[in-house]
Amino acid sequence: MSVLQDTRITVRSMRIIDLLASRVEQIEKELKQGVRKPYKKVVNVSWGDPQKGGVKPLTFVRQVLAACLYPPLINGDKLPVDVRQRAQKLLSVCVGGSLGSYTAAGGIPLIKCKIAEFISRRDGGVPSYPENIYITSGSMWSLLNIVSLLVDRQSSPKMGVLASVPSFSTALIGMSQLGADIVPYYLKEEHGWELQIEELHRALESVKGVCKPVALYVINPGNPTGNVQSRKSVEGVIRFASEKRLFILADEVYQECVHEEGTKFVSYKQVLAEMGPPFSDTVELASFHSASKGIMGECGLRGGYVELVNQEASVKNYTYNLFSKDSCASVPGQIAMDLMVDPPQPGDPSYPLCNEESQHIKATLVQNVKRIHEVLNSLPGMSCQPVQGGAFAFPRLHLPPAAIQKAEEEGLHPDYFYCVRMLEEVGLCASPGCEFGQEGTNHIRICIMTSVDTMEEVLRRISSFHTKFMKEYY
Amino acid sequence: MSVLQDTRITVRSMRIIDLLASRVEQIEKELKQGVRKPYKKVVNVSWGDPQKGGVKPLTFVRQVLAACLYPPLINGDKLPVDVRQRAQKLLSVCVGGSLGSYTAAGGIPLIKCKIAEFISRRDGGVPSYPENIYITSGSMWSLLNIVSLLVDRQSSPKMGVLASVPSFSTALIGMSQLGADIVPYYLKEEHGWELQIEELHRALESVKGVCKPVALYVINPGNPTGNVQSRKSVEGVIRFASEKRLFILADEVYQECVHEEGTKFVSYKQVLAEMGPPFSDTVELASFHSASKGIMGECGLRGGYVELVNQEASVKNYTYNLFSKDSCASVPGQIAMDLMVDPPQPGDPSYPLCNEESQHIKATLVQNVKRIHEVLNSLPGMSCQPVQGGAFAFPRLHLPPAAIQKAEEEGLHPDYFYCVRMLEEVGLCASPGCEFGQEGTNHIRICIMTSVDTMEEVLRRISSFHTKFMKEYY
Repeated sequence: MSVLQDTRITVRSMRIIDLLASRVEQIEKELKQGVRKPYKKVVNVSWGDPQKGGVKPLTFVRQVLAACLYPPLINGDKLPVDVRQRAQKLLSVCVGGSLGSYTAAGGIPLIKCKIAEFISRRDGGVPSYPENIYITSGSMWSLLNIVSLLVDRQSSPKMGVLASVPSFSTALIGMSQLGADIVPYYLKEEHGWELQIEELHRALESVKGVCKPVALYVINPGNPTGNVQSRKSVEGVIRFASEKRLFILADEVYQECVHEEGTKFVSYKQVLAEMGPPFSDTVELASFHSASKGIMGECGLRGGYVELVNQEASVKNYTYNLFSKDSCASVPGQIAMDLMVDPPQPGDPSYPLCNEESQHIKATLVQNVKRIHEVLNSLPGMSCQPVQGGAFAFPRLHLPPAAIQKAEEEGLHPDYFYCVRMLEEVGLCASPGCEFGQEGTNHIRICIMTSVDTMEEVLRRISSFHTKFMKEYY
Repeated sequence: MSVLQDTRITVRSMRIIDLLASRVEQIEKELKQGVRKPYKKVVNVSWGDPQKGGVKPLTFVRQVLAACLYPPLINGDKLPVDVRQRAQKLLSVCVGGSLGSYTAAGGIPLIKCKIAEFISRRDGGVPSYPENIYITSGSMWSLLNIVSLLVDRQSSPKMGVLASVPSFSTALIGMSQLGADIVPYYLKEEHGWELQIEELHRALESVKGVCKPVALYVINPGNPTGNVQSRKSVEGVIRFASEKRLFILADEVYQECVHEEGTKFVSYKQVLAEMGPPFSDTVELASFHSASKGIMGECGLRGGYVELVNQEASVKNYTYNLFSKDSCASVPGQIAMDLMVDPPQPGDPSYPLCNEESQHIKATLVQNVKRIHEVLNSLPGMSCQPVQGGAFAFPRLHLPPAAIQKAEEEGLHPDYFYCVRMLEEVGLCASPGCEFGQEGTNHIRICIMTSVDTMEEVLRRISSFHTKFMKEYY
């Protein structure tokens, strides 16, 4: 597929996202007005939004935030002592002792230090430095900021960013709006959506003379694919980036979410450090994380961070300026980052409840994945690769030719046609594979971060719709 | 001054902001380490950040936020009943009943409706429509988003934005990073920093053939000037924009802050509507507001909105896409917008306290402005125009030639030299006039949104430093 064709995909994707979202809104209005439908409410699993799907927020997180916002709670005795101490500590490092003041541009210094410690612990002791960390209002914001540093709009030929297909479409749209040419590399479903190094070479070759690739975007654990990269795979990507002088943009927001036994998340930062020179001191890397995904699941607070590795000294000032232009990230979001990287420890009053809640969420995700595999793989005309990690299942639809023909007659991508019909008929909103640039095969993306009850309802609705749909077109 | 020269100013401004901020950080570190200085802490009035300056947040706002984040507070009896009802209502319109979920891209629909009602009330009944309102993470974010819609980077000649000098430098830097040529129009200190329509004509003429002006940026009430535009002045700007086909970017974040008796804020939206056709249905306008400024002063929550007037239908989809790319604004910030546009009313349990706190803040600002005039205008070599509104005083420094020469020898702008010396010697951080593009005269900008105690300390430090500085160079 050429770069040009890909641009068309992103443009079309924008329309798909909008159309489905606005149809959901409309249906919800109709239901409120008493319009009769075969369902009482829409279940929307098209987004990675755990709390929307019925996952409960962590009590500790909400207690600390409430106490920070309304400090009389610190002096009361309604909240556990470690909650009150944490709130007190956090307020003491806020400018003016309040969440209502701006913070330093890259985030509250103490929280940056704690993020650096968290990264270092995660990476088996590889050092991390607060000055390379920026706390931001979510990871998309930081990703696009970094891309805007790398991509010069005026450049001719245009600058390119290698990006997986299927991929998180919002990121691709954002990058191409910044003037980047998206150079797709394809993940192979039959290999469990694993990234293939030869495919990176092919993608790069294919744009020789067309654009000038400067960066490589990877999502690990995968979105929408659910693949978790092995250490060997990460190492291969780093060698490739080193050889081709590409900046690695590592979207690692699902790092907490590994559901498959025996599978482990290994960060690009750790592998890079452990590969040693020349890789460890030359390959440029930005790693993104977020309070929105994972066990915390606080999408609405808008908290994330980026860690920059091997950033050229000459660029550091620009980076600082860029991250200062919106003053600072939402302070409640910054507080959430603190709580994410430094949760209660054994012995703390809040530990038992926080641990129980976290374990419950993890167990729920494992259970959801198990049920998805059982149910979807038992449906005729549907198959689902193992969901090793991340927030989504991305099952394939093996649609009958008549269904594909019907979709084409209506000028729609077949999996989009399927999603529209599913929304109308059983009130379930999933994302079509075409939204993620997937071509040639048909898919839907389902968020697995829901309560067990919501997931059972999702599976009931899919099963009932799918069976009827397949019958209709056979 | 040519456009080129102006670019140099913005580039230099970036350095000034950084240098002062990082020196403040350093001094604070030194003080902590026990380094002896003639002051125990730095007082920083270089930012518009009320809570940093000791202004207390509104209790009602913080109670509702705490209850929204930690819903068990809704069922308790510690908080006033209207706080608990409001929190319940707000949670009922959050997706998944939680502040932890993403909202619709442009903001929570109910809050958009309430903002529209607020605007209409403010504007004497001029209608406002929720679909033209986007809730964002602060007004700078929305301003730059709108500018990115207006300015085509590829355009040759470049596109221009007329902007006042002195002006809010962060906005100018952001706009020029988006590819806009900043075309300065000068505000005259001797006219109380009033905007002069002839000056707009001169500015536009001066860039004929150099760039293609597409928009006009105004800040009312003024930053850093403190001027509040009269209805006649606003009308003049609208006529000019209409004649020259310029999109009006109206930064109205200080609309709540009018300190001078007899002076009134009138919005661009209201004047435009009341001028009638052809103006009211052709002139394109974006008006920005924020939870950060004004009585609420919640900078850290990152909440703002933009209202678009007369936006071309063909651009609406682009706007929606642009405002969707970061998913949504911080939900605590969105809640703050709700509380700003719909505070407790007489009869509500929280009304007496909320009203008392608001009145106290307003009275404090009036008192601060009075004291600033008294004290600064009594210092030899300093004069301050009336601060009619906004968050800042912008007094002029009449520096002795020897001081100017000394600054030039050190390669510094004289008012920057003054600010650096003041920071080092009395631990007071103000912004130098050159940061706002002011040329030819010397100034400092002081945030007036502080507690009375902080303001007295600020005035003591300025007086002591200024007197010594003037003596040294006479």
